[in-house]
Amino acid sequence: MTSMPTPEPSAGPPIDRVAIVGTGLIGTSIAMAAARAGCTVRGWDIDPGVATRAAARSALTACPTSEEAVADADVVIVCTPIGAVASSVVSALRTAPGAVVADAASIKEHVVAEIRSAANPLDLRRYVPSHPLGGSERSGPEHASASVVDGIVWAVTPTEAVDPEAVERLERWIGRIGAQPARLSPERHDRLVAFASHLPQVASTSLMGLAAAEEAGEPEILLLAAGGFRDLTRLAASNPSLWSEILLANRDQVATAIDLFVSRLVSIRDEVLEGRGGDVERTFDEAKRARLTLAT
Amino acid sequence: MTSMPTPEPSAGPPIDRVAIVGTGLIGTSIAMAAARAGCTVRGWDIDPGVATRAAARSALTACPTSEEAVADADVVIVCTPIGAVASSVVSALRTAPGAVVADAASIKEHVVAEIRSAANPLDLRRYVPSHPLGGSERSGPEHASASVVDGIVWAVTPTEAVDPEAVERLERWIGRIGAQPARLSPERHDRLVAFASHLPQVASTSLMGLAAAEEAGEPEILLLAAGGFRDLTRLAASNPSLWSEILLANRDQVATAIDLFVSRLVSIRDEVLEGRGGDVERTFDEAKRARLTLAT
Repeated sequence: MTSMPTPEPSAGPPIDRVAIVGTGLIGTSIAMAAARAGCTVRGWDIDPGVATRAAARSALTACPTSEEAVADADVVIVCTPIGAVASSVVSALRTAPGAVVADAASIKEHVVAEIRSAANPLDLRRYVPSHPLGGSERSGPEHASASVVDGIVWAVTPTEAVDPEAVERLERWIGRIGAQPARLSPERHDRLVAFASHLPQVASTSLMGLAAAEEAGEPEILLLAAGGFRDLTRLAASNPSLWSEILLANRDQVATAIDLFVSRLVSIRDEVLEGRGGDVERTFDEAKRARLTLAT
Repeated sequence: MTSMPTPEPSAGPPIDRVAIVGTGLIGTSIAMAAARAGCTVRGWDIDPGVATRAAARSALTACPTSEEAVADADVVIVCTPIGAVASSVVSALRTAPGAVVADAASIKEHVVAEIRSAANPLDLRRYVPSHPLGGSERSGPEHASASVVDGIVWAVTPTEAVDPEAVERLERWIGRIGAQPARLSPERHDRLVAFASHLPQVASTSLMGLAAAEEAGEPEILLLAAGGFRDLTRLAASNPSLWSEILLANRDQVATAIDLFVSRLVSIRDEVLEGRGGDVERTFDEAKRARLTLAT
């Protein structure tokens, strides 16, 4: 191609000064990816020890107060547990009147509603709800890495209250630090993560809990647990209080997803008990074809 | 320590000549591990192309008939799909009157009963039912490797009809090629694998099938599928006809395991819907503690 490259659409000044509120695994990983992309990064955590460990591991400067961390920022990313997201966002909007404020909460509708009811309506134009789909069953800045952000989908879920320029600035910056922005509504986001994230977590925890309960009388059960069992139960090592918060905040969608999952399990059980091998094979074949369209 | 090493207990001559019937992923992997340990290995597959590909990948000599493959063997390992195990074992017992004959079927009670009703009672003294807990969602000799056998648990499930010397010879050889023999009854084996292997497979397939069905109306669902979803659905790419056979052959144990899994899921759903965060956290904490006792 010999044509000129399309000029970047103008959407306000670039984002160079980043503030991270909550410097656990995802916050510190975002800090590392941002520093790699040439941003300066300040951070704050409610636990000063966590902020110090995050700073030791990354180019992030730990600040003694959240106000100091966010004051001069172009963007603030709130990465606290769900229960603290709304108050942190509202406070950042107030303290940093020029900043785009985004969050990393893994559910959106509930968090957006909380923030809407607490923030100044004008400030809401700068709040862009978002959710980077990275992370792991581990937690804490010790396990952070810029690679946690590399190539991940970063959902951006603005409502009509948000300034489109703020959304575009955030999306450009997300792309610059190595992730892929994907725009969808908060409601749609919450329904999709119920299937793609919350249900897998519930399934993993249930399977591990069941095997552990059966093991009480059968100490060899985990001896026979090969790679498949390990894959399916890896998520069960995730943080219980974080997950309790997430599931309760998305309760209706999670309950629907569990119900649909249970129907499928019961249907396979019936096919197996009734010896309907052809039906079992068809069920497995459908799932196999779907799985092969996903990367490993 | 300066004491002399304990002499190896005598349990018949060592196993040096190995025959593999069914040279797919697990058969060829066993052949590779055996060759590495200094055994000579002959193999046969109902599909001559599969046997040729297995030979190209390993030190196994492909034979034109199963009789030729097993005739002079010290041990025969039958690694066919479940439906062909009984006839292959009975035929190997007849063709190789000096050999220990074992199988790799992933369920035992049903297979042992079939073989008992078809084999000469004297020959049954040399049939040692077994199940190497290796393998993967892939199939075919192309994906075989001696490392598939390294360190895996290889269940050995003799009945009282089996000569203890044959069991000990097989177990010593299993250790020599790199796996860990673990002895238990066929019934106990089948109950444990229902929880540790068959249920994880059913859960993985159900989750993938559900996400694919939901995706029909929501093309973004798989976009939001992060690492956890991928881990949980990896097994869904497994061979549908092999799995249909396995589940039907272990139907009662599989149905029981699914029922118990469903009860746990429904209980978490209720805790979530009723906003009982403390209960959800306790459920997750129990599973987390159990998972941390397992290797990743």
